Amino acid sequence: MDIPGTLREPADLEKYRGDWSGLKGGLPAVVYRPASTAEVAAIVRSCRAQGARITVQGGLTGLAGGAAPDAGDVVISLERLNQVEDFDDIGGTITVQAGVPLAKLAEIVEARDWYFPLDIGARGSCQIGGNVSTNAGGNRVLRYGPMRDLVLGMEVVLADGTVMPMLNRVVKNNTGPDLKHLFIGTEGTFGIVTRVVLRLFPRPAVRRSALCAVASFAQVAQLLKQARGRLPGLSSFEVMWQEYLVAAARALGRAVPLGGGHPIYVLVEAEGSTAPQMQEIFEGFLGEMLEEGVVADVIVAQTQEQAQSLWDFRDAIGELLKQLSPFVSFDVGIPLRVTADYVETARARLQAAFPQASHLFFGHLGDGNLHIVSGPHASEADQLAVDEIVYGLVAEVGGSISAEHGIGRIKKPFLHLSRSETELEVMRALKRTLDAGDALNAGRIL
Amino acid sequence: MDIPGTLREPADLEKYRGDWSGLKGGLPAVVYRPASTAEVAAIVRSCRAQGARITVQGGLTGLAGGAAPDAGDVVISLERLNQVEDFDDIGGTITVQAGVPLAKLAEIVEARDWYFPLDIGARGSCQIGGNVSTNAGGNRVLRYGPMRDLVLGMEVVLADGTVMPMLNRVVKNNTGPDLKHLFIGTEGTFGIVTRVVLRLFPRPAVRRSALCAVASFAQVAQLLKQARGRLPGLSSFEVMWQEYLVAAARALGRAVPLGGGHPIYVLVEAEGSTAPQMQEIFEGFLGEMLEEGVVADVIVAQTQEQAQSLWDFRDAIGELLKQLSPFVSFDVGIPLRVTADYVETARARLQAAFPQASHLFFGHLGDGNLHIVSGPHASEADQLAVDEIVYGLVAEVGGSISAEHGIGRIKKPFLHLSRSETELEVMRALKRTLDAGDALNAGRIL
Ligand SMILES: Cc1cc2nc3c(=O)[nH]c(=O)nc-3n(C[C@H](O)[C@H](O)[C@H](O)COP(=O)(O)OP(=O)(O)OC[C@H]3O[C@@H](n4cnc5c(N)ncnc54)[C@H](O)[C@@H]3O)c2cc1C
Ligand SMILES: Cc1cc2nc3c(=O)[nH]c(=O)nc-3n(C[C@H](O)[C@H](O)[C@H](O)COP(=O)(O)OP(=O)(O)OC[C@H]3O[C@@H](n4cnc5c(N)ncnc54)[C@H](O)[C@@H]3O)c2cc1C
Repeated sequence: MDIPGTLREPADLEKYRGDWSGLKGGLPAVVYRPASTAEVAAIVRSCRAQGARITVQGGLTGLAGGAAPDAGDVVISLERLNQVEDFDDIGGTITVQAGVPLAKLAEIVEARDWYFPLDIGARGSCQIGGNVSTNAGGNRVLRYGPMRDLVLGMEVVLADGTVMPMLNRVVKNNTGPDLKHLFIGTEGTFGIVTRVVLRLFPRPAVRRSALCAVASFAQVAQLLKQARGRLPGLSSFEVMWQEYLVAAARALGRAVPLGGGHPIYVLVEAEGSTAPQMQEIFEGFLGEMLEEGVVADVIVAQTQEQAQSLWDFRDAIGELLKQLSPFVSFDVGIPLRVTADYVETARARLQAAFPQASHLFFGHLGDGNLHIVSGPHASEADQLAVDEIVYGLVAEVGGSISAEHGIGRIKKPFLHLSRSETELEVMRALKRTLDAGDALNAGRIL
Repeated sequence: MDIPGTLREPADLEKYRGDWSGLKGGLPAVVYRPASTAEVAAIVRSCRAQGARITVQGGLTGLAGGAAPDAGDVVISLERLNQVEDFDDIGGTITVQAGVPLAKLAEIVEARDWYFPLDIGARGSCQIGGNVSTNAGGNRVLRYGPMRDLVLGMEVVLADGTVMPMLNRVVKNNTGPDLKHLFIGTEGTFGIVTRVVLRLFPRPAVRRSALCAVASFAQVAQLLKQARGRLPGLSSFEVMWQEYLVAAARALGRAVPLGGGHPIYVLVEAEGSTAPQMQEIFEGFLGEMLEEGVVADVIVAQTQEQAQSLWDFRDAIGELLKQLSPFVSFDVGIPLRVTADYVETARARLQAAFPQASHLFFGHLGDGNLHIVSGPHASEADQLAVDEIVYGLVAEVGGSISAEHGIGRIKKPFLHLSRSETELEVMRALKRTLDAGDALNAGRIL
């Protein structure tokens, strides 16, 4: 195959061994870097003719090991398929090739006074195709939904090299099965995403943030319901348990906000227009929550700098991870009504098993997404024991073992805790239907 | 099969011949009315053993002919599978059996101070399972999305009688393919929906409505973008072209609001709290749009009665349909930036072909969903000619032939105008995978 940009030298191949998950894959035989859909299709057809196995790679920021190849794999990296193809200023849609990095997209969109709300820490490297394939989430899912809700249409190359266009541009389209959902969140196992049509939103003029201290999880749930109903433009509802906030403050070398003596903290953010009434409503709402005793204390940011300094505590996770390394981290989905019990029981079991380690709880609770970080855990056996505590309890409460990051290779052994045997069988049948030869990302998810 | 509630007398079977589409199906051999998932599964297994064909029926309000049986079919009606199973007051979810009517669900939910936003004219009869299977839309898709976005989990009975639970309760769940999308909007061709977990929302305290007169479609698009960015809680954006509004007023026996001399009218609705600032923002926004010349004139409803009297014009469609009968109606999806051209060209072609008939344009333009009603058209040949004008033009602009109502039997001949040949092949492959014997709703969609 003569595709420009192809890498074959071992030194060049080294960096394509894996993603951010820490799982190191094998050395690929070759890395193709196609710059058009036709090139992607040609590579897939040629692999098929030779029985070669393909690993698909976006920005390599995934946290489930999905982009890590087996030794000798053909890697298809989308990095050179990175053009913006169409910008619809009237309807608010953009059509891009899969390899466009998320941060680049955001910049292009905002320059034309529109807004693409998906935002994750990996924004500089992760690609739109990777975001689609992992159904990425982030801080604003509460308002805009995950990537799944932001994709109108796409184009994929199927495992036999056929190009399937599904370039829908309208919000409502009921013309039989909505096939794009086969490729959203399926981590490259059903097809290679080559083009995506995204929905855009009007750019919010301001963001308002507040940090609330709350006495119990029951009050967190009450605050969430009230905020959803009464706070226009509510975009984030980030919960941090006490140990997390205290550890974050220590990592930042800053004082713990609101004294640090409360069991739970919530970072609330609303987006909206500059209308002065909006600020009144935001402050009035939090004032009422304080009066009614739903929150025990609150700081309302008065400037963007103050807002950022509140968000610093939430964003300190990167720093914390370094300190807790080697850590085990989780992004589980837990129904709100059992979250308090879940956290209490998980914490007790983790502390009993590993009294020396730290166990931190936080997350996008507005979407039921709980993050847990536990560490340091030097041995693999200890890491597995932590997995078993956390995932075992997820299964008990009917939650999801991955709210955001996907299954990939790393969470495969636990998949049966979140999916019924019949679901697994249907998933296998779909894989046989769409990729009979197991050519694409073999061994991921199932 | 001995399932309580089974109907076998021809007189009893008569009313199960079809749905609202006007297409009259054949007389079924038997109508089963199971009251549990186990009964549904047993019926499906027995049909399979006998090679019988199944037609699935919800509330029979569908507009695509999907629920109309062939003569001799086994009908499975979900009408007795109608219990509410779980109400989660904390997280805001409800789990119901598929046969619960939408209006009953709304009542139960609102009594507990939550809100289920899906609302369509057929609310009294249509069922949650039918809403899922048709991915129903309605007036508030702009804010809450269609049924697809409101379903967290479900349970289905597959074509071989296997029960597949997917009773997810969390907003974010990335554990491989999200199989529920196989059953949303696929009109009963892939499985029978028996249970559904739905997301609830805080109940909005008030609704604010205004009718705007607008000079051109370019200004409608501008108004929409501004309203999406600046009007908190924007929930509806219903566009009515002049002929529609004039005909609606005549049908209601009322004066045309705002004089009737403007080319386009927009009904804008926002939901929210009772905070007095919200009314200020609503009126302030419309005042600015008037000053900036985006809207030419506006009526802001000051009471719920005034709001209802504005909505009467939009809701007059039922009355209008009677007057235009036999009519042909459409719910196409058109990208916003080509909508003005689409309407102009479609109107010109329809008027040229049928100068005596009325051709009315209106729709949920916030979601790109355009409704067209044309009539009266006495002959089938004329009706087909209208179809060909409208759908032909949809294909030209890359729109969708059905934004809401689905394909069923009625739009089957036109499906290829909205879906690529590769998509149709994948759809067929999925049907073979999930229903090899073509037992469920044979002959629909594909
Ligand atoms: C610092 C940091 C913060 C993060 N924060 C978040 C967060 O808040 N929320 C969240 O959801 N995730 C988060 N992530 C995880 C990660 O960024 C996302 O999963 C992202 O969507 C992956 O995109 P990528 O382009 O890097 O994909 P990759 O890592 O390259 O690939 C991920 C998977 O998708 C497949 N894939 C990639 N591109 C394609 C394609 N074009 N077609 C088919 N399959 C493809 C790969 O085979 C692999 O299985 C974070 C990661 C880091 C490092
Ligand atoms: C006055 C009126 C106004 C309407 N307004 C709207 C509107 O604004 N927006 C909109 O989207 N639609 C609208 N509709 C169309 C219709 O109400 C919707 O399509 C509705 O969702 C159908 O629900 P149902 O229970 O009546 O389904 P049915 O008509 O009984 O069935 C529809 C299809 O779904 C299948 N089906 C039904 N139940 C199940 C199940 N449990 N499992 C698997 N398959 C099943 C059937 O086989 C059939 O193919 C309107 C209809 C009327 C009559």
